Amino acid sequence: MATPAPIQNLGGYQLPPGWSPGAPRGLQVLWMLLGQPLLGSELPGTGWRKALLRGFGARIGAGGRLKPRLRVKFPWRLAVGEHCWLGEAVWIDNLAPVTIGDRVCLSQGAYLCTGNHDFRSPGFDLQLGAITIGADAWIAAQAVLAPGTEVQERAVVGLGAVASGTVAAGTIVRGNPAVAVAQR
Amino acid sequence: MATPAPIQNLGGYQLPPGWSPGAPRGLQVLWMLLGQPLLGSELPGTGWRKALLRGFGARIGAGGRLKPRLRVKFPWRLAVGEHCWLGEAVWIDNLAPVTIGDRVCLSQGAYLCTGNHDFRSPGFDLQLGAITIGADAWIAAQAVLAPGTEVQERAVVGLGAVASGTVAAGTIVRGNPAVAVAQR
Amino acid sequence: MATPAPIQNLGGYQLPPGWSPGAPRGLQVLWMLLGQPLLGSELPGTGWRKALLRGFGARIGAGGRLKPRLRVKFPWRLAVGEHCWLGEAVWIDNLAPVTIGDRVCLSQGAYLCTGNHDFRSPGFDLQLGAITIGADAWIAAQAVLAPGTEVQERAVVGLGAVASGTVAAGTIVRGNPAVAVAQR
Repeated sequence: MATPAPIQNLGGYQLPPGWSPGAPRGLQVLWMLLGQPLLGSELPGTGWRKALLRGFGARIGAGGRLKPRLRVKFPWRLAVGEHCWLGEAVWIDNLAPVTIGDRVCLSQGAYLCTGNHDFRSPGFDLQLGAITIGADAWIAAQAVLAPGTEVQERAVVGLGAVASGTVAAGTIVRGNPAVAVAQR
Repeated sequence: MATPAPIQNLGGYQLPPGWSPGAPRGLQVLWMLLGQPLLGSELPGTGWRKALLRGFGARIGAGGRLKPRLRVKFPWRLAVGEHCWLGEAVWIDNLAPVTIGDRVCLSQGAYLCTGNHDFRSPGFDLQLGAITIGADAWIAAQAVLAPGTEVQERAVVGLGAVASGTVAAGTIVRGNPAVAVAQR
Repeated sequence: MATPAPIQNLGGYQLPPGWSPGAPRGLQVLWMLLGQPLLGSELPGTGWRKALLRGFGARIGAGGRLKPRLRVKFPWRLAVGEHCWLGEAVWIDNLAPVTIGDRVCLSQGAYLCTGNHDFRSPGFDLQLGAITIGADAWIAAQAVLAPGTEVQERAVVGLGAVASGTVAAGTIVRGNPAVAVAQR
């Protein structure tokens, strides 16, 4: 009797058709070994963090603050508007693009997840979902955004909430799974 | 047509009236660059962690344990009772005072959040809420306490729960948002 | 009048009868001071991480990936099957044994908790619960497993979910507390 085919074949799973990391291998390695450890350090300072991210291809507007222990997977897939606040230990895990509007606040320890898996495929294929955050939105501390989440302008994702899909403009969601609890 | 006024003006938001960090700038910088990295290191040891925190103004009682990778924002705004256990990677983000009673256990990765924002104000003003934890309470691993939370004596905040408001004495809460599920 | 006996006596609480860390003290210290910091570093590489964990007693099958910033409490209490993916910043807090089947994926920041407390006992005694994860299961990013959790084969614990008890084979759970939402 034949062994059934493995459902997941990790380490060798299929990437989405046409996907590429979007940067030369050397740049990726440089970011991983040098850029990210510096960005994620305890050292304070917004200016040098912006310069570092921009040097690796991120677009970041004027103003705002970038706090220590920030993590960004692929800077070249990150666009941040003006006057944004990226709090301590925020983790932007952007295999797919993350686009952040003006005057957005990502509070401490918020986690933006863009990678999913097709657990129904034999190869447990990686699926990606870009994340978009509209102007004047607030992602509170320790909140988690699922792949493909769109947080519209002025929406609020509450402390530790786990949000997915679309968070409508001006809506306040909280809980896990996050549900709307009020309008701003 | 005039551009509408920004709702959030991050990097320049208003601090609560009368608020101050509570310590000279030099001490803050020293804590950030030297104290916190040491406190948050992998090195084991309770005694030297207590001495370090006390040197920066924390009040900590006898006994208990302070584990590696502990984070404290402002030691001078931290009061911990006797025989408390602060577990690995606990993060006390105390812009406002955090007061912890005797024999309290904060388990691994618990996060105490004291900073909020008035998202209805034009300046997205910072709002602070002190956190108080009564004697013999237990904040389980990965739990999150919102600004202003009061966990009364002998209460338990369950694994990964997100609690806010008042957790009544001897009550066990869990979930996100956390709700009472039992009495101790 | 006598002072009432403390309900919790942290720092001196009772370990479960017969429990031992399962490794000589020297090995524990070596792991804590040298092994874990290396395993948990930003350096990429699966091969050397496997060799390191195996050198400290872990059993790990062929294939798969071990990503940076991985944490393992006691490698000698860890068994991982073939073709498993342990993502970035996964934290296996295995005071008690953790057993992971073939082709399992633990995504970024997942936390496996094996330590509990008997909060009804005078000594706040430590209670341990082993965790078992069946073949082809997926623990998504930032998910938390409680002590004693059994995730059966092909089950999925969703993004940021907090699961406990038994997650039945092929069942998809999400939320906090996690509840079944679909079959795979």
